Amino acid sequence: MRSVVLSLGIFVVGVSSLFPLACCHAEDPQPKGFPFKLPKEKPDRELSAAMERNYSAYLAPRPEDNELYSLFKYTPLKGFDYNNHDGTISRRDPSKVIFANGKYYVWYTHRHTPTSPKGAKNCTDTIPSSDWDLADIWYATSEDGFAWTEQGVAVPRPPKPQVGWRSVTTTDILLWKGKYYLYYQGFMEASGTRGDDCPVAVSYADSPDGPWTPHHKIVIPNGAPGEWDQYSIHDPYPLVYKGKIYLYYKSDFDGDPRLVRMQGLAIADHPLGPFKKHLLNPVVNSGHETTLFPFKGGIAALVHGDGNEHNTVQFAEDGVNFEIASIVSLMPIAAGPFIPDAFTNTQDGRGITWGLSHFTNYTNWSQNHAILMRFDCDLSLDLNDPEMKRHRPYVRPDQYFKQGLNGKQRQRINEANRALRK
Amino acid sequence: MRSVVLSLGIFVVGVSSLFPLACCHAEDPQPKGFPFKLPKEKPDRELSAAMERNYSAYLAPRPEDNELYSLFKYTPLKGFDYNNHDGTISRRDPSKVIFANGKYYVWYTHRHTPTSPKGAKNCTDTIPSSDWDLADIWYATSEDGFAWTEQGVAVPRPPKPQVGWRSVTTTDILLWKGKYYLYYQGFMEASGTRGDDCPVAVSYADSPDGPWTPHHKIVIPNGAPGEWDQYSIHDPYPLVYKGKIYLYYKSDFDGDPRLVRMQGLAIADHPLGPFKKHLLNPVVNSGHETTLFPFKGGIAALVHGDGNEHNTVQFAEDGVNFEIASIVSLMPIAAGPFIPDAFTNTQDGRGITWGLSHFTNYTNWSQNHAILMRFDCDLSLDLNDPEMKRHRPYVRPDQYFKQGLNGKQRQRINEANRALRK
Repeated sequence: MRSVVLSLGIFVVGVSSLFPLACCHAEDPQPKGFPFKLPKEKPDRELSAAMERNYSAYLAPRPEDNELYSLFKYTPLKGFDYNNHDGTISRRDPSKVIFANGKYYVWYTHRHTPTSPKGAKNCTDTIPSSDWDLADIWYATSEDGFAWTEQGVAVPRPPKPQVGWRSVTTTDILLWKGKYYLYYQGFMEASGTRGDDCPVAVSYADSPDGPWTPHHKIVIPNGAPGEWDQYSIHDPYPLVYKGKIYLYYKSDFDGDPRLVRMQGLAIADHPLGPFKKHLLNPVVNSGHETTLFPFKGGIAALVHGDGNEHNTVQFAEDGVNFEIASIVSLMPIAAGPFIPDAFTNTQDGRGITWGLSHFTNYTNWSQNHAILMRFDCDLSLDLNDPEMKRHRPYVRPDQYFKQGLNGKQRQRINEANRALRK
Repeated sequence: MRSVVLSLGIFVVGVSSLFPLACCHAEDPQPKGFPFKLPKEKPDRELSAAMERNYSAYLAPRPEDNELYSLFKYTPLKGFDYNNHDGTISRRDPSKVIFANGKYYVWYTHRHTPTSPKGAKNCTDTIPSSDWDLADIWYATSEDGFAWTEQGVAVPRPPKPQVGWRSVTTTDILLWKGKYYLYYQGFMEASGTRGDDCPVAVSYADSPDGPWTPHHKIVIPNGAPGEWDQYSIHDPYPLVYKGKIYLYYKSDFDGDPRLVRMQGLAIADHPLGPFKKHLLNPVVNSGHETTLFPFKGGIAALVHGDGNEHNTVQFAEDGVNFEIASIVSLMPIAAGPFIPDAFTNTQDGRGITWGLSHFTNYTNWSQNHAILMRFDCDLSLDLNDPEMKRHRPYVRPDQYFKQGLNGKQRQRINEANRALRK
């Protein structure tokens, strides 16, 4: 039966090629050029590959009409002290922002150590190796998303030898059947000792203010030896989708110095697991952090930083098979958006308009630390902000000139010039 | 017959699903995860859409191995005076750079007027409307590509009513059978009077130092009424490909305030025409300027600024059907690369490593003018510069904070916060 349908399909294609296209009648020997008014739908004429793609691959033929295209605007936050940015206090990797008890909540990696990070060779029980070593999960609340009140620790690192005794970092939040769950990276050695190795642990609470009960078990284990995620599960990022917990994560693989970063998916029926890793992992081929949100009937992803498809917003109708939805600039780093429908099991995700992100190495390497900042955007079906839909951010020329050639490159260029003149 | 083949295809698909994949033998009931070492070729296993694309859509599964991926580095040029950047002197839209007579040559739009641009309503015979109004084509030479010596005018705007009497701008160079050809936009009214309307004119010379003989005819006319390029042919950009002159151009269409910018192709057997516009135009669906170069057996394009596929390098095996080859950041604006094989009719294009670009509105609108700058990159098969292949440029946090919210946006956000707290 299916072969009959397909044969009929071929017949239709065959017939249509016998007749001229709508644009090229017999009395009009020279086909008309592409129309001056950009058609909203794909026009019935032969198209170049690029024009075909402009209608088939994006939500709209213009980026300003594409609900998954946006600029990003940034605002410093009020309420966080960084000890004059001397490198002893760091805040990074914000969770999603949630709204509860009349205010916004965010959780993040908090490091307060006697010195800035000193590397794996020089670290001790109190001196951190990396910016995310010897950290705990802290949280803050806000009425407006700009001014924040730090509330202190939510999940401290547990005593040795429990999961995360060396550092607990890069958390994200889930609300499931009235209970809150914080997933986080649980380090059992200083980052940099071998690599950035850790599995995922979880704590739970009845209120976003805690108290948080640690599950004290690895909830998402690293992969088996030889698998892409054998050493680390980074950036656990839970959403409720299709009645289950869809937890996206990143892993570093292939080893130094050419680490590859991609993203996988683990699915569970209960927040404490078991989580089943998707057979098609990795499901996102690029990106340095996980940032996803329900959008229409599927899942959208901000893909920033690494890989062939960095600087994109992507969309998967099924939450698994992601396609590029837009190409963007100056993306938020490690974004944790406010997603009103993150946990509602929605089949009509509305998108995002703001969140927190971080900026690592805010000053210089000797005072290395990260800060939290706010980003705003229009990746929402419920907002139409033309300022956010401009085609490109304005970047001053000094920023271009800061991308300068080094001495070795100048020498290489001088030699090429000399060779050409010979 | 074809339906038989397709039926067979369905049979094959059906059969293959009865048998396990290569990765999953009977003694290995749980299929192994994706390998830790990123395979160089597409592995023989079921892949997510993103992983499938990572192997099929790019020249390499990692951007650092992709010959069409690069960072861009910028260097100020020596040798150009801008009258203290008061807006009376502007240089913009550099041509390709060529090497001849032992030095590099570049041509560009040069404006020297009593005031900065004052808009179409306030312009006169001497006061410019836009930055490219009342301009001529000038040129400069350099031994190293960093320090330039301005040589003065190459093609002045001709007397009224000849093509380009109001302004000649945005030129590019062709070498064909020992003669040089400069193509340029020929304005016959001040830009902004209706839009940015102009066709393309051409001058020719036996030497890059001139003298240049104007052809005094429109060589690439605007499209017929109702066609996408009915008002303007911008950025004429000739290459020699398949034994012919492949001239790419941009047009603005759909009218203000939502101009669409795409790129077309016109092909000729002789530099003075006739040029035949390609039936599949537009062939590039994005970009604000034309920058292309021979690459392997096809043509590569830098696509900057506007459209769904801004911030990409693209590649067309046939010079017509462009696909995204990489996603890049901080692209050169209006780039004119040095392309050693631009005119050699190569079937093995080697790519580019540097060129000139511009920065418009260098200071502020009241002193509006553009400057030329140099960019370097590694989009060359003959260079391997790991510094150029890093995944992202380092952009300081102040540049993020310069992308700030405006008052209207803050108000909108405050209202949303209040509504949520109610």
